[in-house]
Amino acid sequence: MAEDKIKTNEPQKGIEGSILQWAPQAWAHLELVRSKSPLIQCITNFVSMDFMANTLLSAGASPAMIHSVDEIPEFTPKALGVCINMGTLTPDWLPGMKLAAEVANQCKKPWVLDPVAAGGTSFRLKACLEMMDLRPSVVRGNGSEILALFKGSVDSNSKGVDSVYGSGDAVEAAKSLAQQSGSVVAVSGAVDFITDGDRVVCVHNGVPMLQKITASGCSVTALIAAFVAVDPSNAVEATASALAIFGVASEIGMDMARGPASLRTSLIDSLYGLDKATALGRVRISCL
Amino acid sequence: MAEDKIKTNEPQKGIEGSILQWAPQAWAHLELVRSKSPLIQCITNFVSMDFMANTLLSAGASPAMIHSVDEIPEFTPKALGVCINMGTLTPDWLPGMKLAAEVANQCKKPWVLDPVAAGGTSFRLKACLEMMDLRPSVVRGNGSEILALFKGSVDSNSKGVDSVYGSGDAVEAAKSLAQQSGSVVAVSGAVDFITDGDRVVCVHNGVPMLQKITASGCSVTALIAAFVAVDPSNAVEATASALAIFGVASEIGMDMARGPASLRTSLIDSLYGLDKATALGRVRISCL
Amino acid sequence: MAEDKIKTNEPQKGIEGSILQWAPQAWAHLELVRSKSPLIQCITNFVSMDFMANTLLSAGASPAMIHSVDEIPEFTPKALGVCINMGTLTPDWLPGMKLAAEVANQCKKPWVLDPVAAGGTSFRLKACLEMMDLRPSVVRGNGSEILALFKGSVDSNSKGVDSVYGSGDAVEAAKSLAQQSGSVVAVSGAVDFITDGDRVVCVHNGVPMLQKITASGCSVTALIAAFVAVDPSNAVEATASALAIFGVASEIGMDMARGPASLRTSLIDSLYGLDKATALGRVRISCL
Repeated sequence: MAEDKIKTNEPQKGIEGSILQWAPQAWAHLELVRSKSPLIQCITNFVSMDFMANTLLSAGASPAMIHSVDEIPEFTPKALGVCINMGTLTPDWLPGMKLAAEVANQCKKPWVLDPVAAGGTSFRLKACLEMMDLRPSVVRGNGSEILALFKGSVDSNSKGVDSVYGSGDAVEAAKSLAQQSGSVVAVSGAVDFITDGDRVVCVHNGVPMLQKITASGCSVTALIAAFVAVDPSNAVEATASALAIFGVASEIGMDMARGPASLRTSLIDSLYGLDKATALGRVRISCL
Repeated sequence: MAEDKIKTNEPQKGIEGSILQWAPQAWAHLELVRSKSPLIQCITNFVSMDFMANTLLSAGASPAMIHSVDEIPEFTPKALGVCINMGTLTPDWLPGMKLAAEVANQCKKPWVLDPVAAGGTSFRLKACLEMMDLRPSVVRGNGSEILALFKGSVDSNSKGVDSVYGSGDAVEAAKSLAQQSGSVVAVSGAVDFITDGDRVVCVHNGVPMLQKITASGCSVTALIAAFVAVDPSNAVEATASALAIFGVASEIGMDMARGPASLRTSLIDSLYGLDKATALGRVRISCL
Repeated sequence: MAEDKIKTNEPQKGIEGSILQWAPQAWAHLELVRSKSPLIQCITNFVSMDFMANTLLSAGASPAMIHSVDEIPEFTPKALGVCINMGTLTPDWLPGMKLAAEVANQCKKPWVLDPVAAGGTSFRLKACLEMMDLRPSVVRGNGSEILALFKGSVDSNSKGVDSVYGSGDAVEAAKSLAQQSGSVVAVSGAVDFITDGDRVVCVHNGVPMLQKITASGCSVTALIAAFVAVDPSNAVEATASALAIFGVASEIGMDMARGPASLRTSLIDSLYGLDKATALGRVRISCL
């Protein structure tokens, strides 16, 4: 899957012929996150909480892991964006997830859905589809997850949280899902695809070893929430920026890494220290 | 906030004119933790569990993450100290928190409260105030959290878990809160302040990048529990020692760090390997 | 305890006089995990989830942290092995643990039990014994935990999750427990002992600093689940292989470590990158 990753210096073909707009835009989004330090509420699985909070902090955002229905009506309106992740799901967490999505909608704040292992079981799939009905601003999953949401059926080939499909296998499903749902849909993989049902934007950053770090997908979804929170009217662009910046951080981190654990460390360090020249030189976004 | 951090080699003015007592005392506390390996029960949020347990282990303490009401009456009496942290709170965790505090009180064991995001919501504030009623030996928070406890009101400026006030803004509130509650109150920030309502002790160790590591505050609160557990009759001094030692470990770690994630790693490594000469040379504690 | 660790190049005495079979077998098990990428369902404590998932990923397995009774009947049959860990236990987690064990048994899939702090409280002990009644393929604990399971009584000397007995103190108890339960019993410590009640196999790999990394025991239990999943009819051998490979990874990691936190990072990196020559040269397994 990783082989189709583009790492050359070919000029990028941007939207409407513009070659150079995407990298400055990604950098501008990161600068906005650093300067506004958006409060991002995360309702996420137990595995990812630590890595996700550190990802947001290193990008300049302010994470708050708050999932109780007793706090959401009062707290969610203060957040600039919400990230809801379906991992380690039990029925008692669902009311808080739904309430946070509803409050975010009422407050016109963006919220982002990570449908972890959506096709793994009927219970999980039903919960994810109920969340889709609440119209997330963005939904980000791997190929298997997006296909499960699109088909609305449990994946008999499911291998839990790991995708058995490449991101490219799910592009058409992502487009249809975006059209049906009104959400921006992002499929991550060797190439990440982001679509509003009409346009399809591709992000070519990242390294294959990300698949060997638990919760790297969860963490980038939270980063999407932060980027969309500071530019809510351009959710496609902000999502592409977040995926590209996270990918660039992993590429730089890879130079210092000796394996998945040191990559996780150097990725966070690189995200924290990322400078303009590096971002502009490395971001690889194009249109399909 | 970080600019007012004192990092010079000026002689420290200790209590009652003694310049040199604090650093040896901090080292003595760490040596006690290493030799006694106190069992510290932690009831803490999901984000912090891993980092907190590793912080305690690296300092020489023995952490036990046990929060069930089914175990507390039998287990808490075996612990030498208890750390209770209000992050990722839901109502079902409160009975265990209260029971552990009560059992610790009955057994005359110190317990330490971390009122995470106390002013974030009414639910959180009420829970934190109920815990304060159980008279923790020490309560440690950032400026916003201590001000919320003192005022007993939700903070309309709240940014979740991150403080919008400097520690210096909360010194008077900390003194009053200590007088009212009978607890030692510690406000952490660029300078940490520890007070019993009468004396105010200042710790000048630490690095600004700690704010970019999730659960660093939670972890230092657990370290306070370990230090107070081995010297329960000197809670002000033990609290100052814990904050200084954690700060020194972060300063040493900073020399090896390339960002927040490697700092977290090197902080734990440094805490584990800290030697007497380094501790004596770096601990910066003074009185207000 | 660490002093009795054997680190020489003495020839190993394998079963039935074979000196050289164990190291190639351990490598073969790791290669099987890497090639089959077994889906391992983990029901584990909050502290360990991140480290455990990363341990499995770095070994080539596919972890899935799924604990809801709503998903187990549908999901557990897809897994190749199950790891059940009793840390941070509350009563609401027990039905899922029992159901997963029962479904694994029905599907003839191996499941592995980690009886964290079994002797810590009556509640914990009862829960662990109930899990033992469901006949795990393998149970792995430290000396204190295995002794508590064998005696069926709370340990009045218990220090929470840390063992107060060496692994050697629990060998006879482990043998008896294996005979009574039909499970393979592994006692980890300076030397790890694995027994089916008849044979006793010893693993001499590992470093003392593992005791300073929280959830290192939990993580190696998950690794055992992955190794037994790819060779279920040889649970003693697969368990010894997993303990040896994890120990070798810690030994290599130790060369790069400056303390417990960097050891955790380098251990995962080393497990990911472990090659045949290193494994064959370092694995130290013998029979009692």
